[in-house]
Amino acid sequence: MRIIVDAFGGDNAPVEILKGAAKAVVTYDCDIILTGDEEKIRQAAAENEISLERMEIVHASDVMTMEDHPKSILREHKDCSMAVALRLLAEGKGDAVVSAGSTGALLMGGTFIVKRIKGVSRPALAPVMPSDDKPFMLIDCGANADCRPEMLVQFAHMGSIYMSHMYPREGGPRVGLLNVGTEDTKGGELQLATFPLLKESDLNFIGNVEARDVPAGVADVVVADGFSGNVLLKTLEGTVDMLMKNLKQSFMSSLRTKIGAMLVMPGLRVLKKKLSTSEYGGAVLLGVNKPVIKAHGNSKADGFCSAIRIASEFAASDAIAQIEAAVAKKGTVEE
Amino acid sequence: MRIIVDAFGGDNAPVEILKGAAKAVVTYDCDIILTGDEEKIRQAAAENEISLERMEIVHASDVMTMEDHPKSILREHKDCSMAVALRLLAEGKGDAVVSAGSTGALLMGGTFIVKRIKGVSRPALAPVMPSDDKPFMLIDCGANADCRPEMLVQFAHMGSIYMSHMYPREGGPRVGLLNVGTEDTKGGELQLATFPLLKESDLNFIGNVEARDVPAGVADVVVADGFSGNVLLKTLEGTVDMLMKNLKQSFMSSLRTKIGAMLVMPGLRVLKKKLSTSEYGGAVLLGVNKPVIKAHGNSKADGFCSAIRIASEFAASDAIAQIEAAVAKKGTVEE
Repeated sequence: MRIIVDAFGGDNAPVEILKGAAKAVVTYDCDIILTGDEEKIRQAAAENEISLERMEIVHASDVMTMEDHPKSILREHKDCSMAVALRLLAEGKGDAVVSAGSTGALLMGGTFIVKRIKGVSRPALAPVMPSDDKPFMLIDCGANADCRPEMLVQFAHMGSIYMSHMYPREGGPRVGLLNVGTEDTKGGELQLATFPLLKESDLNFIGNVEARDVPAGVADVVVADGFSGNVLLKTLEGTVDMLMKNLKQSFMSSLRTKIGAMLVMPGLRVLKKKLSTSEYGGAVLLGVNKPVIKAHGNSKADGFCSAIRIASEFAASDAIAQIEAAVAKKGTVEE
Repeated sequence: MRIIVDAFGGDNAPVEILKGAAKAVVTYDCDIILTGDEEKIRQAAAENEISLERMEIVHASDVMTMEDHPKSILREHKDCSMAVALRLLAEGKGDAVVSAGSTGALLMGGTFIVKRIKGVSRPALAPVMPSDDKPFMLIDCGANADCRPEMLVQFAHMGSIYMSHMYPREGGPRVGLLNVGTEDTKGGELQLATFPLLKESDLNFIGNVEARDVPAGVADVVVADGFSGNVLLKTLEGTVDMLMKNLKQSFMSSLRTKIGAMLVMPGLRVLKKKLSTSEYGGAVLLGVNKPVIKAHGNSKADGFCSAIRIASEFAASDAIAQIEAAVAKKGTVEE
């Protein structure tokens, strides 16, 4: 397996990316193609004593920043580290791409360089997230703010196929439609039109799910328009951050609580690991012809290593072929 | 001040409601009108030794359940405890209504019994919620799944006026538009059309806010369509619940952690109180002619007592007159 890694995406490029890639080479027995400024990569590796064994570097001096317009990956920045990575993937030089760079640019590049699976209306950005139970996929989390019912049905099929490979469950992944209540008649126009389409599909559709029950693991695939999916994802992250910060402050408030904190720490570490998004390696760009993984912008080495593992597993599966078949059979969305 | 309390709404009716009302009478020096089955109220009060001093009971034998269609408050259940409460309010027999019953029914009854403020397109359900900083209002949180830009502008005005009374801030409450990013050009059609309207208003509009920053207190009024507002509210609640449950489990995992938990407990209690929604007494139904407060369905005595306090403060303010004036001036939405 050969994973193409954008060495200049995200807040911690390139050092943490190189560390993560080096760990993945050893742990998951894969080869890496790094894209980015070769001199800077070699210098960072040397300074931090990171082995570049089994890593090839494809030079790209340009970098997309968060301020650049996503479309510029196809024009002004068509030779940036992310664009080069996606082009290598499209040309078959590697099996998957991992990037922690601009989400908008990766979506644009994925759609127009790697290209959509035939029949897919819009690729979706789908993070796999920790729940109290098993991990779940949220699809879409922000690629498409405005959606039509048929797009949500495609998201459901793509998410279900992906999750059935990664986290098999008897009867198939439980697919839920994000809604404001669990009754069949809840929601706005989009949800009311989508519900019957999911109901009559061959998916393991469990009906409407409320955001309240998502962190507890009520569904394996949570289907949403990109706007409300984004709100769910970011509220969850923001709430965890806020609570953890307050928890720390409350532990540090007196000598008594400091001693108590030391005693409860081992349990908290287990909890932190359980709820850590870095275990799951980021979001999958579903609906394009080859595996593209969006690592979290603030990923550290472990996050990149996980993302590379996910990319390998995704590339080794025949999920994309299955999505193509499913879309051809029933899920095509008229443009 | 005379607050009308639906004694048969929510999961803990009527005992916790009576306890909360009795506490409010003493704490906030107000009179109460209870609506509901008089015999059951007197029996519950006697059995639980709750004083009914300064409380009048207006008998209503019927109760709305969560299974009843919201519209039935105007027809089959037009004499239920909630409908009677709203009618008393409309007739000027009391200054505000508090109910923990069905949200849909309260919205329907508020709109058609208490009636909308002239010029208001749709009343919104707006909870005041704890953040890491000051409390913030989320408007709308589920009354209107599908919204037009002009509705969001009305929500912004109503929320800003309410919060300027309850939690004054120099320069006016900071109003933020819930969006998938902070840049001006982010969002779907609704947000893109709403942004310039808020920008040119006389509100203290701080631009787009991301769900990630809401729990930290980035804005005093978070404006959203009812669908994504509902997703935000319920994700926040579900994440807090899931974390607290896991925290408890991790504290109980060994003798060591149990001892530690005892030591950190005082700090945790402060944190729990800080983040408790019961402090804020539920959601305000903004856009109707008189103060209507929706208490959380699972409120206990303290929650009802807070809701009654909020109702009193709201009734004592001239927020509704100001909303009427603001809507007449600029916020009217064409139907």
